[in-house]
Amino acid sequence: MRYAGAVARLIGELARLPGIGSKTAQRLAFFLLSAPPEVAENLSAAIREARIQVRRCSVCGNLTDREPCAVCADETRDRALICVVQDPRDVAAIEKYRGFKGVYHVLHGALSPLAGLGPEELNIKSLLTRLAEGRVKEIILATNPDVEGDATALYLARLLKPIGVTVTRIAHGLPVGAHLEYADEITLGKAIEGRRVIE
Amino acid sequence: MRYAGAVARLIGELARLPGIGSKTAQRLAFFLLSAPPEVAENLSAAIREARIQVRRCSVCGNLTDREPCAVCADETRDRALICVVQDPRDVAAIEKYRGFKGVYHVLHGALSPLAGLGPEELNIKSLLTRLAEGRVKEIILATNPDVEGDATALYLARLLKPIGVTVTRIAHGLPVGAHLEYADEITLGKAIEGRRVIE
Repeated sequence: MRYAGAVARLIGELARLPGIGSKTAQRLAFFLLSAPPEVAENLSAAIREARIQVRRCSVCGNLTDREPCAVCADETRDRALICVVQDPRDVAAIEKYRGFKGVYHVLHGALSPLAGLGPEELNIKSLLTRLAEGRVKEIILATNPDVEGDATALYLARLLKPIGVTVTRIAHGLPVGAHLEYADEITLGKAIEGRRVIE
Repeated sequence: MRYAGAVARLIGELARLPGIGSKTAQRLAFFLLSAPPEVAENLSAAIREARIQVRRCSVCGNLTDREPCAVCADETRDRALICVVQDPRDVAAIEKYRGFKGVYHVLHGALSPLAGLGPEELNIKSLLTRLAEGRVKEIILATNPDVEGDATALYLARLLKPIGVTVTRIAHGLPVGAHLEYADEITLGKAIEGRRVIE
């Protein structure tokens, strides 16, 4: 079916979003065309505004609409403790837990030679700048527990240890509520290796 | 987690789309903020443009960016045969089949007393205008085979028959490729009632 030009373009742009196939893109497009006009106008404006207003924080690299970001500007956060993550969504996930009182550093990716992502493509230089001030005591490497995330953590650990800062890695193990019999052997191995004395 | 204002607004607007929950909205928002700027710009523009350019065809009610729409303007289509559907997507679905050479009429909904949708809310008046010209021979009622669609078809049949036009309903039955044992009993009943002589 030849959709009208503007409809076809809208479906095409929607289908470029991750996880949105052509059927879903069609459904969303016709929803936007049938809903009250302000639904489409608000979405269009929100996308444009977010792209204009949201920048990377010059300190930690997280996405923010003020400079520095809310976490970096918060005087109650412990600047001696930096948690390094791959993605802004990881910051959101850790903030939900509420127990972390340090600050963040967002790499915007992980090392991936196959995807052409080397250290130069990641937000690493500004991390070294932060460390140069000498107030940081510990770096928690909270990259994902997969091949790229582990490689990135190893690379950063080798880079940062000579500076004299404590470098830690988040624990691998069984997720809370998981059943042992359904865990994969690698996670199970990590959980046993990482066992802790009950006090 | 308090997202930056513009990010929170974007997530909120995305989450208003049908089938998009808050997790998916977050994922889409961060994709739009991390992808090359033109991805977000093009989507924002496509939504705005589609809303500005796309109107209902004054003849059939289908969504179009020209007046009348491509089907209504096509001289090779049979204007004596009108297929009545609920939604512009239904037109797209039937056009894919390529075997239908008539024209369409889009109701933009179905009768639904619970949702407050009566005949006045549907695109029915312009259908009567089309019939008044006297050239239409058959109306195919292709509303959905569910409670609302069937009620709408029944309502239209009663309204249109006195005008002296042939009114038909699309066949109900087993979808092609379906297994009999998995069919629900209502579909199976319709398939048996609607049986045809093999010639």
